[in-house]
Amino acid sequence: MDKIVLESPLDMHLHLRDETMLEVVAPLSAKNFSGALIMPNLVPPISTKDEVKAYKQRILKASKDKNFNPYMTLFFKNTYTKTFLKSIKDDILAIKMYPDGATTNSQGGVSSFDLKEIGQTLQAMSDLGIVLAIHGESNGFVMDREAEFIPLYEQIAQNFPNLKIIMEHITTKIAVDTMKKYNNLHATITLHHLLITLDDLAGGMLKPHLFCKPIAKRPEDKEALLALALSGHSRVMFGSDSAPHPQHKKESCGCAAGVFTAPIAIEVLVSLFDKHNSLKTLPLFLSQNAQNIYQIKPPKKILTLEKIDHIVPKSYTDVIPMYAGEILNYKITNIEV
Amino acid sequence: MDKIVLESPLDMHLHLRDETMLEVVAPLSAKNFSGALIMPNLVPPISTKDEVKAYKQRILKASKDKNFNPYMTLFFKNTYTKTFLKSIKDDILAIKMYPDGATTNSQGGVSSFDLKEIGQTLQAMSDLGIVLAIHGESNGFVMDREAEFIPLYEQIAQNFPNLKIIMEHITTKIAVDTMKKYNNLHATITLHHLLITLDDLAGGMLKPHLFCKPIAKRPEDKEALLALALSGHSRVMFGSDSAPHPQHKKESCGCAAGVFTAPIAIEVLVSLFDKHNSLKTLPLFLSQNAQNIYQIKPPKKILTLEKIDHIVPKSYTDVIPMYAGEILNYKITNIEV
Repeated sequence: MDKIVLESPLDMHLHLRDETMLEVVAPLSAKNFSGALIMPNLVPPISTKDEVKAYKQRILKASKDKNFNPYMTLFFKNTYTKTFLKSIKDDILAIKMYPDGATTNSQGGVSSFDLKEIGQTLQAMSDLGIVLAIHGESNGFVMDREAEFIPLYEQIAQNFPNLKIIMEHITTKIAVDTMKKYNNLHATITLHHLLITLDDLAGGMLKPHLFCKPIAKRPEDKEALLALALSGHSRVMFGSDSAPHPQHKKESCGCAAGVFTAPIAIEVLVSLFDKHNSLKTLPLFLSQNAQNIYQIKPPKKILTLEKIDHIVPKSYTDVIPMYAGEILNYKITNIEV
Repeated sequence: MDKIVLESPLDMHLHLRDETMLEVVAPLSAKNFSGALIMPNLVPPISTKDEVKAYKQRILKASKDKNFNPYMTLFFKNTYTKTFLKSIKDDILAIKMYPDGATTNSQGGVSSFDLKEIGQTLQAMSDLGIVLAIHGESNGFVMDREAEFIPLYEQIAQNFPNLKIIMEHITTKIAVDTMKKYNNLHATITLHHLLITLDDLAGGMLKPHLFCKPIAKRPEDKEALLALALSGHSRVMFGSDSAPHPQHKKESCGCAAGVFTAPIAIEVLVSLFDKHNSLKTLPLFLSQNAQNIYQIKPPKKILTLEKIDHIVPKSYTDVIPMYAGEILNYKITNIEV
């Protein structure tokens, strides 16, 4: 039982950035994953068909792996018409909704969640079967932002029962409970929110490389997220929210939000699920649920992992990964396509 | 009313460190304040009469101001006997109790708050009239640590009714409420906890220069602290907890806890109390209450402040102050002794 085989892992929430950073990080995700849902929050955000297509080409070129499928997203705007959405439907897998200014490069996001403002676009998405992925945070106190957004999740879920809604990178027990209540609510969970709380960021020394949005919450929140992921719940998927920043933007006076987990995520997930005797549900969390929710067939990629201690690189060029320089106890030893 | 006159300001919780750092920061406190209570958490901590006397001499030498009085403290140990305490009584103003490992250089602090362990020393302090200053935090989740320590404050307050107890650098509404309940409980409040919440540290970009222990809490906590300070409550004093670290220890993978406020504290306090129409109570908070609580007569020092915009230095050698490079609207324009 020391060899683990995983088929076609998917990362359903990924930041690949652009230009030099894209060149650094795309191959690291493409190597281990069959596909990933690519976030559109570039500067400016991806919001036209041409931008989607061009960004996809840049990703394919940078990723250097034909067995990696970047599933594209569009940055939500309430000005999108049904005609426009129909024309772009086949080029994207979801539309990502950001509250204005909630996280890195989210300027120009939604400033009013009044259904008079966003309802028409949501109805068109529902009619066309386009998935809505939401960064669900208010602009309130940092520990309360996700909880304060819950009524908005509920409002959208109730008013658009046929709209498939993804609660992205959930971090709280209340989000877990809310997701379970509505059949059209789904969720992604990151690696780091299964592992850390605010204590890991700020309980001892301050650790800027663990600083992320939404911020890591309380121990009881982490426990609820972990229980949900380990359960293999059919509406829950892995989404790393792996978000690279150059080292000087993390270790500075104003440190950017984001944990870089893409290169180590699968190995750490195997350790975590193994520790909790839940390796059986890992394929659901890491691939099958996403295939069902998004109705996708990713390229075949068979990973073999073995229980071998190895050290995480201290950096990938100037990007510091989670667990940099630390020992992981599972290693990907073979990848077959 | 644009000229504010303050007499003999006191900072009843100050870290001056040692050696090069002491040389940098001691003159900055000594210039504006008449006196300060000096924390004993050096490496190793100040715990003998010789160490107290030698540290005091180093401070006097570094501070270069004969009108500044460093009031010394001793690092609490439950091995201190009444005979020892009697011999050191006149050299110190308080004994500082740290839970083991709660903050910078607190190793060797109290690991059990059982009165069987610490009661004898506390009784001796009570008998001799030595003040007990406490860093009150549990080793629990970072946002709960002060609240979890409240029962220990209450236990000590109830069991030693004649012991003068200072709840150092309080940060929560529950600490404010607890302090009010017991006549032998007193408190210091820092400048930064009157101004920031966790949002300022981690709500936008992560700001390592605002990272401190105890961590800044919720908006309702800040409001309770501010109301208490502005009220001029007789058992509450200003204690900056100004805690300098070199820049490279703040902007790094593991950032040390502490906000450096000593050089700007008085000017910012005047702005803050003025903004809340409470300049009348500022002398209580900043000097008179401490004189009454500790029964001290600090050197006379008359500060005049005027409403003049000026820019805070970006650094003092390699120490970055709070509000570095920003504009303050009150300026100390004259100091008379």
